[in-house]
Amino acid sequence: MNYINPDKTNAWVKLASLVPPGKKFDFAGRLTAERVGRSGIPMAGGLLYNWAAKAADEGTIRALQALADEQELISKYRALLDGEIMNTGEKRRVLHHLLRGQLGKPVVEGTRDLGEFYKAELERFSAFAGRVRSGAVKGASGKPFKNAVQIGIGGSDLGPRAMYLALDNWGQRNGKKKISAFFISNVDPDDASGALSPLDLAETLFVLVSKSGTTQETLANELFVKDKLVRAGLLPARHIVAVTSETSPLAHNPSYLDSFYIDDFIGGRYSSTSAVGGVILSLAFGPDVFKEFLSGAHEADALALAGDIRENASLLDALLGVWERNFLGYPVTAVLPYSQALSRFPAHLQQLDMESNGKGTNRYGEEVSYATGPVVFGESGTNGQHSFYQFLHQGTDIVPLQFVGFAESQRQDDVEVDGSLSQIKLNANLAAQIVAFAKGKDDPDRNKFFPGHRPSSLIRGGRLSPAALGSLLAHFENKVMFQGFVWNLNSFDQEGVQLGKILTKKVLSGNSGAGTGDEVLDAYSSLLGVIP
Amino acid sequence: MNYINPDKTNAWVKLASLVPPGKKFDFAGRLTAERVGRSGIPMAGGLLYNWAAKAADEGTIRALQALADEQELISKYRALLDGEIMNTGEKRRVLHHLLRGQLGKPVVEGTRDLGEFYKAELERFSAFAGRVRSGAVKGASGKPFKNAVQIGIGGSDLGPRAMYLALDNWGQRNGKKKISAFFISNVDPDDASGALSPLDLAETLFVLVSKSGTTQETLANELFVKDKLVRAGLLPARHIVAVTSETSPLAHNPSYLDSFYIDDFIGGRYSSTSAVGGVILSLAFGPDVFKEFLSGAHEADALALAGDIRENASLLDALLGVWERNFLGYPVTAVLPYSQALSRFPAHLQQLDMESNGKGTNRYGEEVSYATGPVVFGESGTNGQHSFYQFLHQGTDIVPLQFVGFAESQRQDDVEVDGSLSQIKLNANLAAQIVAFAKGKDDPDRNKFFPGHRPSSLIRGGRLSPAALGSLLAHFENKVMFQGFVWNLNSFDQEGVQLGKILTKKVLSGNSGAGTGDEVLDAYSSLLGVIP
Repeated sequence: MNYINPDKTNAWVKLASLVPPGKKFDFAGRLTAERVGRSGIPMAGGLLYNWAAKAADEGTIRALQALADEQELISKYRALLDGEIMNTGEKRRVLHHLLRGQLGKPVVEGTRDLGEFYKAELERFSAFAGRVRSGAVKGASGKPFKNAVQIGIGGSDLGPRAMYLALDNWGQRNGKKKISAFFISNVDPDDASGALSPLDLAETLFVLVSKSGTTQETLANELFVKDKLVRAGLLPARHIVAVTSETSPLAHNPSYLDSFYIDDFIGGRYSSTSAVGGVILSLAFGPDVFKEFLSGAHEADALALAGDIRENASLLDALLGVWERNFLGYPVTAVLPYSQALSRFPAHLQQLDMESNGKGTNRYGEEVSYATGPVVFGESGTNGQHSFYQFLHQGTDIVPLQFVGFAESQRQDDVEVDGSLSQIKLNANLAAQIVAFAKGKDDPDRNKFFPGHRPSSLIRGGRLSPAALGSLLAHFENKVMFQGFVWNLNSFDQEGVQLGKILTKKVLSGNSGAGTGDEVLDAYSSLLGVIP
Repeated sequence: MNYINPDKTNAWVKLASLVPPGKKFDFAGRLTAERVGRSGIPMAGGLLYNWAAKAADEGTIRALQALADEQELISKYRALLDGEIMNTGEKRRVLHHLLRGQLGKPVVEGTRDLGEFYKAELERFSAFAGRVRSGAVKGASGKPFKNAVQIGIGGSDLGPRAMYLALDNWGQRNGKKKISAFFISNVDPDDASGALSPLDLAETLFVLVSKSGTTQETLANELFVKDKLVRAGLLPARHIVAVTSETSPLAHNPSYLDSFYIDDFIGGRYSSTSAVGGVILSLAFGPDVFKEFLSGAHEADALALAGDIRENASLLDALLGVWERNFLGYPVTAVLPYSQALSRFPAHLQQLDMESNGKGTNRYGEEVSYATGPVVFGESGTNGQHSFYQFLHQGTDIVPLQFVGFAESQRQDDVEVDGSLSQIKLNANLAAQIVAFAKGKDDPDRNKFFPGHRPSSLIRGGRLSPAALGSLLAHFENKVMFQGFVWNLNSFDQEGVQLGKILTKKVLSGNSGAGTGDEVLDAYSSLLGVIP
């Protein structure tokens, strides 16, 4: 395989020649119903990716296809599926796709088929979740479990939390929800203390998630929880299950009711479809729902193998993002789901994208001379409309937009006002915004002038089901992966978080009052009350 | 007063000459304990603004002072306090400061002293909240109210929600919390339906908030709620209070238990200290707590009158932001509170900043030729560390950072692990990050190389109390105001949200199946199920 920086490709030069004047794509006359009609790519889970309002014409699409081909994006994806060491810095395979099903060769580590291992763990925690939900597994005082609290941070928190919120209303409507989930992540003690205060610990099961078993925040919160359980007269070993790797101190440990395993080939931000997301989602909604979610993701992974960018939503989305970032010069992307269920999905994508591709060196550790991953932020529509859309419409910078919407609500509990249901109003707003951003509006009063030129894409579906959610999640995982391949990055490590950890340890070593010997660290520690 | 674009000032030219090579400020040798010690500015509510790790030396500070003077920032603030028409487009005064206390001349509209009017409304809703909290006001079935649900969007949602979350743990710890608050904002029917499902409506009071009384989302949700109340056999007029302007259809309306008033001089995103935030916060925590919050904001407003940028935290913060945006070229700012209580504070600041200053025309409606307000995003630390900090440390773009931290937790419920409390760990992380971002770390392995040059400021306090929260809120309101003055904008209108509203109406007019006559709108409407 040919791992080169993208600015060494012929397509890169070609793309540079296609940049429109002022880096602004003029949608007038170009964004037509015909274009909307032919710009849809079917996705898994009944979704559709429509790129009609993206700032690209036929010539750009051809050049992006050439870039995909020159950078061998599909071959690199196949290599990843086959278990090659794609996390080069940490010398690890990258196997989150295998959690959902097998698309490449069998991946064997020693004598273990890893696909079989993941499947076996899935079945183990499915069975466990079934026993908890049926009341066969009870708390220390004999009460059945009504709550599950995930203790984890980063990938052990953002993805699972976003997925839980995404399915909560669906689960209630479809009679699947049996256990309410809560999340403790921050080392701020107010997080754990506040989250636990309304819960009856006797009916609460904790899911302790740390791959390494050494995450500072998570271990502090584990001891916080254990202390509370003991004070409530409840044996912690009856109230905590662990999700970890087999080599961690949490593994095979009688302090826990049970332990479910992942391994080093499942990155934190890619772990929602492993036991990291699976245990809590299976407890809340049942193992069958979690498996539907996996099957949506698996179907999306399969569709991402198509070499033609006009048939591969993740691939095209990735390449259009490169076009916007490197050629149109837009440093930020907004994710705007018109679905309250996806209120924390942007926060998950923020980690997924910015931790994967927010990097200044390529996979060989050489400094790059082009922009890599953008800033990602977002809130649900219509809420964002009443917040930062002013900036998006009339600010001095252009921010490309990723809209998501569904024809039907999850709860099917609606009211008609002024001749339309709220769900219809929601989607009317979405349709209107796409056109407003692209085309703008002229006005002699320049305060009321809308420049337009704001590109967006739309992912639409019928209803946000578990399979649709799995498809949506995998779409973005694969988009980020393809972009990492284009930029010649290792998207699967996160060396950028290490320095903070090292300096934190240093600060804590000096908190007795002696200081660290670094006068600046000590000055800030003193300001913040770390040094007494 | 002299309202000119900043690029016409002498200070602007001077600042351009001070830009460091590569637009990167080298902290090595400059960020010292001595600098940390002399870079603190006292704020209201016991807070301190420390700018030691901002990318500015003495010369830059002097030039920023000159810019403040040339743009007459304090005089403009005084004019605003005196009730001048500062929202020029809509021809309105801007009076949110007056909600907290009087700092300028009396502001009289017709025969009404507006300061007295705001005070009278404050006392009215304080008394009402007291009666609800004592059980004197009950629901239609005779049950006392245990829940309050705010129905509002944008400024009627983000600020009040962020403030409620900020004080929830404090209120519990200090025995002030009597009523739990919930929020319905989105027109997505799943939002209202999901929020109501766990609540006993017989003990639930709704706070309906819309200044104009015509907000589409809020009216749809009002009818949603009324429908549910009627079905539960509860008279809606006994369960809903309105917060609105006196000219709105919600005013003096027997459909509501009571109505509390604001006016057109209180902008949505500046309304947390009005009845918009005051009713729900007074219900939850009591009117005295809300008044402490106001007094913290008032004290901050008074300190923002200082002309010396070395003594005025809001003013200096504003000017350093201009330096970063217009001269160092950073398009994004991240807000990172190391306090779980402030988890939604960044979402509020996102609206406050991006809706106020995300504008391409100046206060005279002329197109500007310089960048205005940045993208603002953020999540609480330490959570952000495990999410997007990779990008912040090693990404190809520099993002200036606004840290917030407190020496003590709100709940004072903590656990010692490995020799330190969680609160100490939290702040050790914060101290470490400031230094890591500024100074970076050299490493022969370029994957482990940290370039540094990442500027940040720190707002620190003892504990997040109501007064500290008021101070923090007002600090950012005043920062945004000063930046708007520098950029010669009208920070108090939001014309950029109008086009979407107009097109949404058009889409809804065609939803019976006839279409709108705009083929592109219809194509998207059809994709989203708006057209059957």
